[in-house]
Amino acid sequence: MSTEFSATDHAMMSRALQLAKQGLYTTRPNPRVGCVVVKNGEIIGEGWHERAGESHAEVHALKQAGAAAKGSTAYVTLEPCSHFGRTPPCTNALVEAGVAKVVMAMLDPNPLVAGSGKKFLQQQGINVEVGLLYGEAYQLNQGFCQRMTIKRPLVRCKLAMSVDGRTAKASGESQWITGADARADVQQWRARSCAVITGIKTVLDDDASLTVRSEQLKIEAAKTCPPPLRVIVDSQLKTPVTAKIFNGAGKVLVATTCKESNAISRIEKLGAEVVVFNESSTTDPAGGDNASQQVPLDLLLNYLADHGHCNEVMIEAGSTLAGAFVKAGLVDELIVYMAPVIMGHEAKPLLTVFDMPKMADNVALEIKDVRQIGKDWRMLIQPINKLN
Amino acid sequence: MSTEFSATDHAMMSRALQLAKQGLYTTRPNPRVGCVVVKNGEIIGEGWHERAGESHAEVHALKQAGAAAKGSTAYVTLEPCSHFGRTPPCTNALVEAGVAKVVMAMLDPNPLVAGSGKKFLQQQGINVEVGLLYGEAYQLNQGFCQRMTIKRPLVRCKLAMSVDGRTAKASGESQWITGADARADVQQWRARSCAVITGIKTVLDDDASLTVRSEQLKIEAAKTCPPPLRVIVDSQLKTPVTAKIFNGAGKVLVATTCKESNAISRIEKLGAEVVVFNESSTTDPAGGDNASQQVPLDLLLNYLADHGHCNEVMIEAGSTLAGAFVKAGLVDELIVYMAPVIMGHEAKPLLTVFDMPKMADNVALEIKDVRQIGKDWRMLIQPINKLN
Repeated sequence: MSTEFSATDHAMMSRALQLAKQGLYTTRPNPRVGCVVVKNGEIIGEGWHERAGESHAEVHALKQAGAAAKGSTAYVTLEPCSHFGRTPPCTNALVEAGVAKVVMAMLDPNPLVAGSGKKFLQQQGINVEVGLLYGEAYQLNQGFCQRMTIKRPLVRCKLAMSVDGRTAKASGESQWITGADARADVQQWRARSCAVITGIKTVLDDDASLTVRSEQLKIEAAKTCPPPLRVIVDSQLKTPVTAKIFNGAGKVLVATTCKESNAISRIEKLGAEVVVFNESSTTDPAGGDNASQQVPLDLLLNYLADHGHCNEVMIEAGSTLAGAFVKAGLVDELIVYMAPVIMGHEAKPLLTVFDMPKMADNVALEIKDVRQIGKDWRMLIQPINKLN
Repeated sequence: MSTEFSATDHAMMSRALQLAKQGLYTTRPNPRVGCVVVKNGEIIGEGWHERAGESHAEVHALKQAGAAAKGSTAYVTLEPCSHFGRTPPCTNALVEAGVAKVVMAMLDPNPLVAGSGKKFLQQQGINVEVGLLYGEAYQLNQGFCQRMTIKRPLVRCKLAMSVDGRTAKASGESQWITGADARADVQQWRARSCAVITGIKTVLDDDASLTVRSEQLKIEAAKTCPPPLRVIVDSQLKTPVTAKIFNGAGKVLVATTCKESNAISRIEKLGAEVVVFNESSTTDPAGGDNASQQVPLDLLLNYLADHGHCNEVMIEAGSTLAGAFVKAGLVDELIVYMAPVIMGHEAKPLLTVFDMPKMADNVALEIKDVRQIGKDWRMLIQPINKLN
């Protein structure tokens, strides 16, 4: 962008981003959007999108500004919509309110509609600028953007380990190597996710329900999040009908390669969705004993983006499924909790990743953030050289 | 202590500790000691001990104060010596200078002499207070204190690993998973250590010299450190006479259980010391294939404290020897460098620690400090429940 934005422009868009973040846990599958209406350097209206089906950020902000919106500048963190969805187009509202200028942090990430809002506004004689604090705006909705552009959600992989990179004793004894604060932190990540993905092994071993435990959430807004979809990667449809995961709030999707209609209907009768994939031809042969690796993980993510409208998903699985996602280059962020304990080399590994005999095969990472969470430490890590 | 120390007292002792730290890399086997002489609230003399055989902190500070020392208060981070060593007793110097009051952070840690300096000063009519900033003073000389009290140096164990707790590929391919900054940081720790301990496997595999690379040191004072003793744990005396470790600056000690005089004299001819221990009866049987585990590690540390006058030692060894030290509860601090990379579960483990089948067998830790060193992260970790 050639535009020079002023300090006031930056301050106003920062405020709009701050407002947008109010929707972190609730807007899905919509993006998080904030809007500030400014006149003579003063904020006269603020708004943010809270929940799909309800008013967009611009509508809230314009309503607060009222008649004063005439001749104002609107700062929006995302290009206003120009189509009728569940609510009327925001571009119309901006025009009707007499807004003179609209500053957007970024265009709609959907390449098929990107720019149409901008174009409409310009056609109506409104001055439009794009690109102010683009990086921050993109980051806030990275999952939504990835869904729109590459049909893949933002994928986080949550892991918990000892200092020596172990997750459980060889016997399987494991639960809760991290403390209560770390576990509460995990709930916060679940609450912002559209889906939580696990493997059949975790369902069988831990009988996890993978719901959001709202009593553990420290942020009030997170408590009203829509329940995330819970996804089981279960090639052979071994999930027992008695599994706790079928009881918790929210839907369950079972991803499988099993085509047996009896097995499928047994799960569907519980109200869960069964999605049958063709077996992955690229499955690592060394992982052949682990059924969960046979579901094509890339296609599963495509499905979750496309049909499930998932912006952000979190993998909470054992080392084999997590390792398969990492090896396939499908993970955008690792959230690793490190508990202050040594478990020894006979304990189970953090990630089961086959076929990496050389140093050159290592997955290169960037450690973005490290902080103490109770007695544990949490690392936010991004793979930087994806393998595919 | 019932004494109430004033803010000025705290400030003066803090300054004395700051001075003492100037000797971090050079005083060994002596403790690091600082001294401040104060009159009418003003510092009139400062000193610190730089090197064994040279003047003690008190002597430097009194010299600077000159005749003004009469009636002054001396703040010393450690009880002044009252015996003739390589230099005359500091208690005499304090008395001769006419010091009115001596404030010590702590008594001499050697229980056989602790309090004798204090007693002598009191007998000479000097007002003595003990215990100001004791914790900080103890920490600065923890190795010296442990040597004096339990005949064991402070033991640090340096480790470098991937995010998933791996140190090398199964093939052995490994060197430098951490970056140049982390490796320079290791040199700093070596420089303050009286000894660096490694295993025969590391000598055979890496032909490491384990010397201090002064060109990598960022702190000027560290460059003048006495070269640390380098210790090889080598039960069967397999160290080749051509090993690089015999060439670098400083002495080499080979700890063994091998009693063959030919093998011993072969090493001794190189100028190295060979110390023959009786085989450890408590050696973990699962480690039996690793010869280096047969040297009784507790007795080795006793020897290094007692005969080697080692205050601080650093273990830089493979997973088996490091694991044995950890399992035996002999490690005071783990220095773990984490490189931003995933190596996979087939790579070598951080620590080989046998016989820990249950969660209750885990070694509990406290992570004291985590910071970024170049592209890597360094964790300073203390085991909190030692196993013996």
